[in-house]
Amino acid sequence: MSQQYTIADYLFDRIAEAGATEIFGVPGDFNLSFLDNIIDSDKLRWVGNTNELNAGYAADGYARERGFAAMVTTFGVGELSAINATAGSYAEYAPVLHVVGAPTMAQQESKRRIHHTLGDGVFNHFIKMVEPVTVARAQITSENAASEIDRVIRLVLKKHRPGYLMLSPDVAKLPIYPPTTKLDDSQEDITSQAALADFKQALIEFLPNKTTTLMADLMVHRLGLQDHLKALIADTDIPYTTLSWGKTLLDENSERWAGTYAGVASRPVVKDAVENCECLIKIGVQYTDTTTAGFSQDINEQVVVDLHYERATISGQNFAPIALKDALQALHEVMTSGIEITPKPLCAPVKPHKQHGTDEEAIRQDDLWHIIADHLDHNNLVFADQGTAYFGISDVRLPEGVTSYGQPMWGSIGYTLPASLGAAIASPHKRSVLLIGDGSALLTIQELAVMIKEGIHPVIVLVNNDGYTVERAIHGENQRYNDIPACNWHLMPQAFGADDNNSLVLKAETAGELKAALKKAAMTTDKMVFLEVITDKHDIPPLLVDISEALK
Amino acid sequence: MSQQYTIADYLFDRIAEAGATEIFGVPGDFNLSFLDNIIDSDKLRWVGNTNELNAGYAADGYARERGFAAMVTTFGVGELSAINATAGSYAEYAPVLHVVGAPTMAQQESKRRIHHTLGDGVFNHFIKMVEPVTVARAQITSENAASEIDRVIRLVLKKHRPGYLMLSPDVAKLPIYPPTTKLDDSQEDITSQAALADFKQALIEFLPNKTTTLMADLMVHRLGLQDHLKALIADTDIPYTTLSWGKTLLDENSERWAGTYAGVASRPVVKDAVENCECLIKIGVQYTDTTTAGFSQDINEQVVVDLHYERATISGQNFAPIALKDALQALHEVMTSGIEITPKPLCAPVKPHKQHGTDEEAIRQDDLWHIIADHLDHNNLVFADQGTAYFGISDVRLPEGVTSYGQPMWGSIGYTLPASLGAAIASPHKRSVLLIGDGSALLTIQELAVMIKEGIHPVIVLVNNDGYTVERAIHGENQRYNDIPACNWHLMPQAFGADDNNSLVLKAETAGELKAALKKAAMTTDKMVFLEVITDKHDIPPLLVDISEALK
Repeated sequence: MSQQYTIADYLFDRIAEAGATEIFGVPGDFNLSFLDNIIDSDKLRWVGNTNELNAGYAADGYARERGFAAMVTTFGVGELSAINATAGSYAEYAPVLHVVGAPTMAQQESKRRIHHTLGDGVFNHFIKMVEPVTVARAQITSENAASEIDRVIRLVLKKHRPGYLMLSPDVAKLPIYPPTTKLDDSQEDITSQAALADFKQALIEFLPNKTTTLMADLMVHRLGLQDHLKALIADTDIPYTTLSWGKTLLDENSERWAGTYAGVASRPVVKDAVENCECLIKIGVQYTDTTTAGFSQDINEQVVVDLHYERATISGQNFAPIALKDALQALHEVMTSGIEITPKPLCAPVKPHKQHGTDEEAIRQDDLWHIIADHLDHNNLVFADQGTAYFGISDVRLPEGVTSYGQPMWGSIGYTLPASLGAAIASPHKRSVLLIGDGSALLTIQELAVMIKEGIHPVIVLVNNDGYTVERAIHGENQRYNDIPACNWHLMPQAFGADDNNSLVLKAETAGELKAALKKAAMTTDKMVFLEVITDKHDIPPLLVDISEALK
Repeated sequence: MSQQYTIADYLFDRIAEAGATEIFGVPGDFNLSFLDNIIDSDKLRWVGNTNELNAGYAADGYARERGFAAMVTTFGVGELSAINATAGSYAEYAPVLHVVGAPTMAQQESKRRIHHTLGDGVFNHFIKMVEPVTVARAQITSENAASEIDRVIRLVLKKHRPGYLMLSPDVAKLPIYPPTTKLDDSQEDITSQAALADFKQALIEFLPNKTTTLMADLMVHRLGLQDHLKALIADTDIPYTTLSWGKTLLDENSERWAGTYAGVASRPVVKDAVENCECLIKIGVQYTDTTTAGFSQDINEQVVVDLHYERATISGQNFAPIALKDALQALHEVMTSGIEITPKPLCAPVKPHKQHGTDEEAIRQDDLWHIIADHLDHNNLVFADQGTAYFGISDVRLPEGVTSYGQPMWGSIGYTLPASLGAAIASPHKRSVLLIGDGSALLTIQELAVMIKEGIHPVIVLVNNDGYTVERAIHGENQRYNDIPACNWHLMPQAFGADDNNSLVLKAETAGELKAALKKAAMTTDKMVFLEVITDKHDIPPLLVDISEALK
């Protein structure tokens, strides 16, 4: 056993074991020495970001695709710059481990006015500040390194939410032996077999002879149960929907897809399917104000079978603890056991979109997202920023295989630009498609530089509508606080290091130009494609009209 | 009395009364409605920023010049993005009030999964998170509005550190009557006259017949006592120094200026003046690791007279409470009362800089900052980012009248770019000069767009040295984590909206080109000047050599 193996090596080996092959972050003098361990690792690759918030967003996007991500920042200045990303990862269930380089133990014990501190000799302010937005935290010491690293990473994986480790350079270089246990302790099962048996029996009694609709949402994705859900759908005939948070969980090209449910802002077919069925099976659903048009869902809880994180309910009767995976398995068994399952008939099929404007006219928001959807393929990872992009794409039918991501719960504008970078690095065989407005893009635009440095080839659709249009829809339609500085967007890729060899810059003002540009983008797979799309600053997608009305 | 006057009006009137004429921030749906009150105000002007961190930095720069600043963000996503700026304002004594638009009281009482929350129905997570980095916080309600607004703003002004107010749109629009009291309660005096009398008597006994040096630092600036300090200097003959944190507090063109003190990294003349005098008068000094080369000051505390925030000491004997202003006044009276004050003789005058390279050679860091200093004038606000810029400018003689700002305590790279914007808005008759490296600039570069929109005319010296050179000096000289993406810096102004009418883009690779460019910049006062200066990626200023050695 070599004495060279250190606590930093142990940490980074565990990070690799948890599923990361890249690590995000920004260097700082309290983490520099153990960044060397990443450079020397044959399991991890360092991806430097332009700032810490962007690093946190990139890690979040990576975690959504990969099931785990890690980032490294420096004490105080770095970690606090990233804390909004961590809060988003918490709210939206993205398992990101945040490793913070801290002053040495000797510096901490000296209680002196060290830089990157508040100057009060207190070194645990920031680990306390991060408490509400992490499921586990630890300051790594020589006494606790292995057990605390393992505990925090295991909780991140189990809860699908962020964790935090504080590591001083002097601790990082202490010798330790490599792990001898496996990190994975997923065998540990919270399900009570008695609860599960009672739940199955209750399903057998409840399900028959009721018109039934299925509604799925993000927790299915976050718990990695997409295949289980798809198998259930394949073996039954019931119609289904998702909320926008769970968009693309299920094939949207089947006749059984009812559209995206959004409370009063739903289209009639999905509203009827959800609100007028006799049995609504909810799987991993969480209502938020933005995904339900202000909690306007009109659902009789007596008809609901609800499968969630670690409990299931039928007509409000609670069965717990049952892990979602086990409840889903039980549901699948019961529904295919020969009992009478009655699909809720859809009142009308979801119609193909008919373009409102002509190809020669300026692009309209009620066409834009359909035209984009028509040019996606199964290989795309779509990131829609929490503005007109998110609401625009939400009720549009997307091709099978596309994964669509947004951030409706946390709703931090600018998030998707670095997140789409992280996801593209996590899944190099997929192509990311970023849908973002000018106001949002301005918050995090410098991460374009890392896209170029990393050599990824996204399609970036920058909707230039002259400011915060989603805010105009809510309040202050013509107030100057909803304006942003006029930028020359087409120069951004080049300013951040792109050239003609690695990027293609396009612009579209009419629907026809948009189609041509999207075709060219789809064919140009070996470059970053940056497409500026001009829309009117007051034009918003139909869903947002209803939702912003409800949110007022 | 009009019923139109609301709690929002009360808040913004108090903000104006505290000294702000502009307010920084980013709109969000929880603050939009009361941003209208800013638009309607004849006392305040809205300056929208590109993101919340930049808004916080801009407010910090404004507060340093103006003595108070305010910013508005939205709940969760907005405020947490700004929290690193707030922490910096706390560590560096910048009085910034942060107003956060929160969900309505009805939404909060519903405890539902509202966007921009963690989805747990808890609405006080973020006001708790901000606790370590603010001196006062409140959630404004109909019951407490006037008293809590007044309390928080008064504490911000008194402690010169950030405060936090959470305001819901429904509360903001409630009617209230305008303030009838003055916000200013500075009459309230913490000084004990008995302590002050004892201190003066002790000074009379201690000061005579000792070789004496004066050392001043940032708290003199933050408490607004520069004129008091200058009067003391004018009425005495003693030599003086500052730490880099207090740079430009005193005229650096006098023969009595000993240079900038920096522990073992000090030049011999200032080291001797400080460490070998028989009486060292410290005024508002705070030692940090970065300003003292790792606490390497070799000072006999027995010879020290120390005036600080609300206490003074002589040879370690404590006199409290005495406000710094009163202690300074007492010191002035005693030193000019006819007792024998003996200036510590300087062992050599601070010599003018002799250029190391020729005008035709590439620019060297040991010439760069001197050349820049030669081209500054009394009208300039210099912001030096915490990299080679800060350490480079620290021990260079600056013209009288120049104010130099850095962030050696908090040390958040990228800070100075938005901060220089904020300061320029606070002091429109001054011209900001931003000294920043490429690595740092990349973190916050989009704020260029606001500089252009606001029509300010800074000189931006972007030192392009191919990455994080200050980190290379500490660790990982050639490691790739210290590299940054290669950007086309000269395109940045145009990408962010500049054109030839409002900007001038220059580049310098040799000392001669640098001088010509700086001359042109000084003459071009009606445009933003963006000057890219190329230096070697391993070249660092002399002071940083010593400091990084000490910090290792």
